[in-house]
Amino acid sequence: HNSKLPNVGTTIFSIMSGLAKTHNAINLSQGFPDFGSDQKLIDLVSNAMNSGHNQYAPMAGNLELRKAIAKKMDVLYNSTYHPENEITITSGATQAISTILSTFIRQDDEVIVFKPAYDSYEPGVKLNGGRVVSIQLQAPTFSVDWGLVKSKINSHTKMIIINTPHNPSGTVFSKDDMLALERVTKDTNIIVLSDEVYEHMIYDDEKHQSACLFPDLKSRTFVVASFCKTFHNTGWRIGYCCAPKALMELFIQVHQFSVFCVHHPTQKGIADYMQEPKHYLELSAFYQKKRDLFLSLIKNSRFNFTPSKGTYFQVLDYSNITQEYDVDFARRLTIDFGLASIPLSVFNENNLDNKVLRFCFAKKDDTLKRAAEILNQI
Amino acid sequence: HNSKLPNVGTTIFSIMSGLAKTHNAINLSQGFPDFGSDQKLIDLVSNAMNSGHNQYAPMAGNLELRKAIAKKMDVLYNSTYHPENEITITSGATQAISTILSTFIRQDDEVIVFKPAYDSYEPGVKLNGGRVVSIQLQAPTFSVDWGLVKSKINSHTKMIIINTPHNPSGTVFSKDDMLALERVTKDTNIIVLSDEVYEHMIYDDEKHQSACLFPDLKSRTFVVASFCKTFHNTGWRIGYCCAPKALMELFIQVHQFSVFCVHHPTQKGIADYMQEPKHYLELSAFYQKKRDLFLSLIKNSRFNFTPSKGTYFQVLDYSNITQEYDVDFARRLTIDFGLASIPLSVFNENNLDNKVLRFCFAKKDDTLKRAAEILNQI
Ligand SMILES: CSCCC(=O)C(=O)O
Ligand SMILES: CSCCC(=O)C(=O)O
Repeated sequence: HNSKLPNVGTTIFSIMSGLAKTHNAINLSQGFPDFGSDQKLIDLVSNAMNSGHNQYAPMAGNLELRKAIAKKMDVLYNSTYHPENEITITSGATQAISTILSTFIRQDDEVIVFKPAYDSYEPGVKLNGGRVVSIQLQAPTFSVDWGLVKSKINSHTKMIIINTPHNPSGTVFSKDDMLALERVTKDTNIIVLSDEVYEHMIYDDEKHQSACLFPDLKSRTFVVASFCKTFHNTGWRIGYCCAPKALMELFIQVHQFSVFCVHHPTQKGIADYMQEPKHYLELSAFYQKKRDLFLSLIKNSRFNFTPSKGTYFQVLDYSNITQEYDVDFARRLTIDFGLASIPLSVFNENNLDNKVLRFCFAKKDDTLKRAAEILNQI
Repeated sequence: HNSKLPNVGTTIFSIMSGLAKTHNAINLSQGFPDFGSDQKLIDLVSNAMNSGHNQYAPMAGNLELRKAIAKKMDVLYNSTYHPENEITITSGATQAISTILSTFIRQDDEVIVFKPAYDSYEPGVKLNGGRVVSIQLQAPTFSVDWGLVKSKINSHTKMIIINTPHNPSGTVFSKDDMLALERVTKDTNIIVLSDEVYEHMIYDDEKHQSACLFPDLKSRTFVVASFCKTFHNTGWRIGYCCAPKALMELFIQVHQFSVFCVHHPTQKGIADYMQEPKHYLELSAFYQKKRDLFLSLIKNSRFNFTPSKGTYFQVLDYSNITQEYDVDFARRLTIDFGLASIPLSVFNENNLDNKVLRFCFAKKDDTLKRAAEILNQI
């Protein structure tokens, strides 16, 4: 049998984590914390199991959790989503993205994707017979030319995928970016998929510009987010998406046959945990400290960088140091120096080589110190 | 936006469970137990969270769990699957099925499905541009005419979906059925999706005829199963599939972008729990008792039945009682009499009406007694 994704290999995250393991390297590649989830949250999930939340959740998710999300969207963004029919809990943001694509993309539909892009977007589009129209952003600013975006829109354009704060670059969309997106999609049938899984990790004087802050844009947007990053438990696979009722109705039709519903006790535990908003409100400060520590430790290294504005990733430019291709350099760094990262080129159009590696700073201070020591030697 | 599934509504399971709730009816509709999961298993999942199994599992799943499954397949069916590349853990059997269909079904591919069929098969085929070729089975035996199956096979036939023990009918495929399936698909490129989620619930002198027992058949088959039914926690969403390496490689390509991986601590907890095979080996006896209790209580009712041979469902024929259409009768039974079931017609080709309702007997003895009292009044 032939693959429907002939050019797709194993995700880079598994490859680099595997390489790190084999070579006993410090793993700043795949995005996950090396510290534990809050014990309080773990206990709440255990309580949910012990109090009988072990059978199917409603397809759209545990209602308390949907209400908690609705409340959060209201408090943070002054944006209303009805828990009954505008919010669905998914198996991580990954399933939300994959199901949105299955729901809407048909043969020959075009989807505009900004590169570097998270690696699940393109296969999801192709699997449904769609075509990715790539717009390559350039390091170090990764800024968007909205005139160019506008020029790519035609009658086949079904969707635009954005991601802010942006993985892998650590940049964020400004209010002007969002207004431009709103403008170029106004009065079209284009659906916007706004991947906002890093909404609670935003630094310095930036503000997260959620698509739901812009009423006209919101009317055609799926906001996708996740608790896996927010609550330090990437293995729990609880994400969600929010969209106006008319879009969500179509999504849930497919969702019900994709996974039916997701891990019920974890949903209930997270719903309880979210009653204290500080659990997500304090996250930016927590990770900004880690970013600052990491950058202060490598400020005299030969790597160039602009501090990450969001996500828990920092990109480092090594063009001063070596002319090696990203993938080769990332491998050498792992194998010879014991530090794993993610080469940005794999997320770029035609694997364009920016000489940039991505490092995850969701790590214990000690891990960051040991990683910095390696970077300083290079 | 138009739906890619224009004729698909909300799954019947959610509709009937919702109706049961609204009318405070005994819910024997959606298949889930009304008793708790084993406390030992819950504690093992809590332990897994407390011992730090909270980050991403490998895409194919926690290796200990894959090894436990491989061991089970070996002990029960004397069938070898390599944990490294022939077993993948999924978000319930539902995601395994949906991802298998996304992986293999292309525009105009045909998939042979026996009706009544579990309601996720057909939308999954259609979403990928495939066509369902239905073969209607007739109550009460629901037996297959393999000559007819053979006559439906042509160059477009990409897959055959079977389900034994069979939901909703409670019948099982015999060894002869499996040999016939092996024969009609021999030397073809057809993939077999064998939904075996009820493998551990099989009654009287029946034996579960897993597709993996038949080496030639096995070479083109995905065996799909689930822990949700087996361990009484339908809300945990942990299933799996087994297939030869060449097929699994294609599956995992899509799986990685569908969900990436599934709830890690639950995988670890189940892996530990499976070290005692009695946890699944004793299941048939446990449920046979429930079936026997339920049937003994309604033996003088006006419903006709053949005892279920597998699954935790019993179908009851009401053609002696009323001529109402399945869906109407199931609604009346819920609203007027306080007992919810699933009308079989919704799983049939063109909603063919057999005058048969499905009842889930994965319930406390007391629940079954109260349900039987209602059935005896009708
Ligand atoms: C699903 S593995 C990838 C984790 C992640 O989001 C990242 O490292 O970017
Ligand atoms: C996913 S809800 C349906 C549960 C079930 O398998 C059934 O009732 O047949």
